[in-house]
Formats: sequence, C-alpha cells, structure tokens
Amino acid sequence: MRATIIHAPGDIRVENVPEPSVTAPTDAVVRTVATCVCGSDLWAYRGIEPVDEPRPMGHEYVGVVEETGDDVTSVRPGQLVIGSFATSDNTCPNCRAGYQSACVNREFMSTCQAERIRVPQAEGTLVAVPDGAADELLPSLLTLSDVMGTGWYAALAAEVRPGATAVVVGDGAVGLCGVIAARELGAERVVAMSRHETRQKLAEEFGATDIVAERGEEGVARVRDLTDGVGADSVLECVGTAESMSQALRSTRPGGNVGFVGLPHGVRIDGQELFLSHVGLRGGPAPVRAYLPDLIQRVLDGRIDPGRVFDLTLPLEEVAEGYRAMDERRAIKALLRP
Amino acid sequence: MRATIIHAPGDIRVENVPEPSVTAPTDAVVRTVATCVCGSDLWAYRGIEPVDEPRPMGHEYVGVVEETGDDVTSVRPGQLVIGSFATSDNTCPNCRAGYQSACVNREFMSTCQAERIRVPQAEGTLVAVPDGAADELLPSLLTLSDVMGTGWYAALAAEVRPGATAVVVGDGAVGLCGVIAARELGAERVVAMSRHETRQKLAEEFGATDIVAERGEEGVARVRDLTDGVGADSVLECVGTAESMSQALRSTRPGGNVGFVGLPHGVRIDGQELFLSHVGLRGGPAPVRAYLPDLIQRVLDGRIDPGRVFDLTLPLEEVAEGYRAMDERRAIKALLRP
Repeated sequence: MRATIIHAPGDIRVENVPEPSVTAPTDAVVRTVATCVCGSDLWAYRGIEPVDEPRPMGHEYVGVVEETGDDVTSVRPGQLVIGSFATSDNTCPNCRAGYQSACVNREFMSTCQAERIRVPQAEGTLVAVPDGAADELLPSLLTLSDVMGTGWYAALAAEVRPGATAVVVGDGAVGLCGVIAARELGAERVVAMSRHETRQKLAEEFGATDIVAERGEEGVARVRDLTDGVGADSVLECVGTAESMSQALRSTRPGGNVGFVGLPHGVRIDGQELFLSHVGLRGGPAPVRAYLPDLIQRVLDGRIDPGRVFDLTLPLEEVAEGYRAMDERRAIKALLRP
Repeated sequence: MRATIIHAPGDIRVENVPEPSVTAPTDAVVRTVATCVCGSDLWAYRGIEPVDEPRPMGHEYVGVVEETGDDVTSVRPGQLVIGSFATSDNTCPNCRAGYQSACVNREFMSTCQAERIRVPQAEGTLVAVPDGAADELLPSLLTLSDVMGTGWYAALAAEVRPGATAVVVGDGAVGLCGVIAARELGAERVVAMSRHETRQKLAEEFGATDIVAERGEEGVARVRDLTDGVGADSVLECVGTAESMSQALRSTRPGGNVGFVGLPHGVRIDGQELFLSHVGLRGGPAPVRAYLPDLIQRVLDGRIDPGRVFDLTLPLEEVAEGYRAMDERRAIKALLRP
C-alpha cells in the first residue's frame, strides 16, 4: 500500500510499504477514508525535531474498519470510525479519570498518512460514526481525531464558562477550533489573536467577537484594554513557543486559567512569575477520546463545522505539497484523500 | 513603640520606632495582641533574599482596633480583628473574583512584629472576631492571618475534593495547616511528607493518614506506591524550591492538580514536562481575606485547631530567638506577645 514517509526535513515521499495487519487481539485494521497534515508534523518537516531515519507520518484519520482482533467488540468491519491521535484502552485509572491521552496502554499514532493503518487498543480507541453520515461531513469528522478535540480540551483546561471572556493565542487549525469550543462552552466574548486576514475571517465565522493582530507586549496590552485592565478569564494557548506561552500567561486575569495544547518547544516557566500571576495552568495531549461521542453528535447536528479549517484537499500522492503549503502558511490545513 | 527590625541576615533587633497613625481615610491603627514569625521571614534572615537596608518585619497579626479613618465603617475601635498579610479593598474586580491577594490596591503588610500597626484599606482588609472569643483561641485565630489561610488556598488550588487523595509537600506551619485544610475539604487520604518526628506526629493529629519520610525520587515512588502507581489527585506544594516543586508535580496523577503556596525561589518549570504530565498548576499569595469569615467560624466552633503549629511563645522583645529557633528547626513557628 501507499504511505507517507519523511526522509529528512523537507523531504516527504509517498512510498510502497507492507500492508498493516492485526497483530494483537486488541488491534483493528482501518482503511483510511480521509487523513491530513497536522501543524505538529511541521516540527519534523522544519527540522526543529530531529529526523534520524526515514519514518512514517500522520496521526489523524477517519476510516472504515476492515478487520478486528478477537478482543474487539465495540466496532465491526464496515463501520465508519474515528480515533484519537493517542490510543487508549478506556478502562485504566487515567482513562476513567477522563485523561485517555494518558492511558497506561497509550501509543501515539504515527502512520496515518497512508491507505491503511493498524489501530492498537481498538476497543477503547475507535468510536463509530452512526450510519448514514453525509459525505460532506467527513472533513468535520476528521478534525475530531485531533484538532477539534484539542481545541475542545484547550477550552476545558482554560475553564471556559458561560459568560466568560476567552482569548485564543494561535490561528492554526487548533486555535480556530478553540474559537468554536470557547463559543460552544458559552464564552460571551472570544478574542482571536491573528494577523492573517483569511484566518481572522474564519475565526469570526467560527464565533470570535474580537480580533487582536498585535503580538507580545502589544498583544497583551490590547487584551487588557478589552478586559477593563484585568485580563481574560480563560486563555487557550495553541502554539507552543516561549513567546506564545508568555503572551497567554500575561493576558489572563488573576484567578483565570490558561489551557495549553501546543507541544511546548523551548518553554520554561518562571515559578515566581507564575506564582505572582495567580493564573491556573493545565496542558497536555488532549484526551480526544473522551470528547468523540459528544463532538460527533455536534457535527451530525450541524452545530459545529470545524471541517472548514481544511482549505486544501489533495490526493495522498501529493502529500508533499500539503506540507509545503502549510509550511509556507498558504494553507491552514491540508486534507488527504487516500 | 517597640518594633522588629532586620539589619542584615541573622541580625534581628527590637527597637524604638515612631507610633503608626491614620494617614489616609481608609487606614486603621491596630494594637497587636499576637503576632509571629513566618517561614517566609527566613528567606531574608538566611540571606537568600537581600537585606539592602534595615527594615521592619512581620505580616501576621491579630489585634484590637485603636483608631480608624473616616472611610472605615466595617470595624470600630475596641474590636478584635484579623487581617491578611495582603491588604485588599474587597471591591475591585480581582477581589470580587475571590483573589483579594491580587487586589488592585494591594499592599503587603511588613511591619507587624511590633506593638502597633497601620492597616491600609482597613474597610476591606479587617475582619472582626465576634465578641467573647476565648483567649486560648488566639493562636488559632492568629494563624488565619497567613498560614492557615495559605494552607486552605493550597488545598483549594489543588482542587481537593471529597474522597480524594491529597499529598502535602512541606512540614512547616503552612504544610501542617494544609493537612487540616485537605481533611476539612473532604480528602479521604492525606499523605504528609515529613522526616521530622514531632511534625509527623502533629500532621497525624491534624488528620494525615500516611507519612512519607522519603524525598525526591524516592518520595515520588512512595506516593505512587500508595496510589496504585497513578499518583495523587491533589498535591499541596508548601515549600517553594525547585526540588519541592518537582516532587509535587511528579507525585500528581494525570488530570490532578498542584496548588503551590511557597514563594518560589529558583523554580523553573519545563513546559514540555508539565505538558506531558497533564497536571494542573495554580499558586500565588493566598487570598486569605476570602476565607477569614469561614475560618474564624471553624476556629470558634472548635472544628479546627491550627494554633497548635505554635510550639514556641515569646515576648516580642525576644523575637530574635524566635527567628533562631525556626531557622534551626527547633521550632515550627514562634508566636510573639507584644
């Protein structure tokens, strides 16, 4: 079958690789219907994360079950399913606490930009989409595998409450999904920090009430202006750099919360500064699995339309162009059709 | 009047200084009935915080109102009152959000190891103790000015819930009060980390169910042993060093919370490590003012007895011995009678 392999920074190829198979009774094999390129894939593409040897790429998927191991009873061949970028048995103490992305049997998916994938812990990981979902909902369903679930977790970690003011730092697909999440959770005011016109526009269509184009100190000052000098109740940090984290922490009111979901690169938080801020902080790989049933329903009901973050659709064979377009910020997010 | 002045690390003296007076209509002057030495006073005493010039010391007090400015109506001369180590108008947005220690008019008290003090923002800061409180409750009432309120905030910031497992890092007065708070908030299991026999004993009397004497990696391993390998729901970090913060973060389960109340010295938190831990983190100077009415009632009702952290009582004139005893860990906390 055909699969995406990174050979070195900037060197993405589609190659023939062996078909995956059920190797444990807890596995399933899924034929991908749609997969995509993630902002976090760019860390390796840009050489910020090392690429020591050629390896497959991709961790987001929606697909059809082809085969299941003997222990898998929650899904069956032929069903359309979604799974998180992190597998989970959904029964361990961390799963039961709602942190499936910290499952004691967790594996991070890493081969999804391909025609077929092996899904470990399929029983707990995969969630079936009810029969008859319209094909045009596929992009939105695909976002639930990562970016929409991650934006949702950012809003929950930032403790967005009805009536709150939420700020979203980062205008990538996760940040834009964070805008949706903040609105769905009842934020009255959602401030999107973005300097790109097309992303500003999409943020507004997703429910942002204010746009702040400034960054750093100026951005913080603008947020303070918008919040009577106090800072925002909830800030969703969807980037993962030292600058974005600092901006998020300084935009939050005492007693407010930052939810951070961009994998931090080079972020060191000064303990005394955090202490004096009174800001609560929680991050991590999102427990997407926990939200899948609810978010699938919101997509099917037409309440949310996160699939609009895909502004480029390519056949799998052209995945390299998807990386290029996202790297150059010509595209927000590239959907791949295997 | 007599007041405590630090001249240099290790050099604490009681000297004659001018009487305080009402200088603003929002001030009150309070005659201290009891004051004390705080663990945080030792940072300067030990030279970890610089002492550039002689300055007064002390931020905890219970006393009798002697005089009030024209804007002060909530308390009157003759009343026994308690105030936080941080003043607050109790009306600004941060106060209304329950973070009085981030009041826009906040001042940190710093002259309380003395016979009399000026209390700014007295209207919002001071809380009167109902008439007739027994003299033997004074030590417990005094702890509400800082250490008991700070332990309470640590437990709230660590989101201690009924049935939870809570770990307390630090066996100073704040940590010991944190044990009380965790129990009062319903923790089923409270693990006190302490290697000092008298403090272990007091922790148990305050409600600790388990004692862990090990520190660092061994301490973390012991907590994991006690929690089925998962980590604790809530950890109260009551020290403020890099080691104690690391120990706290690593003792917490994914999705659990660390409340940190020891002023951090040299603490830098790795963003990626925090991210991967899924641990929520909130700290800061405790909004003691928010808790005073409730905690006063708990003391008057005999529900809590935090005054037992005072294992040394001295006349104000012997304050230097109080610092010495605490520095050498001969005393947990020294109460001063002006």
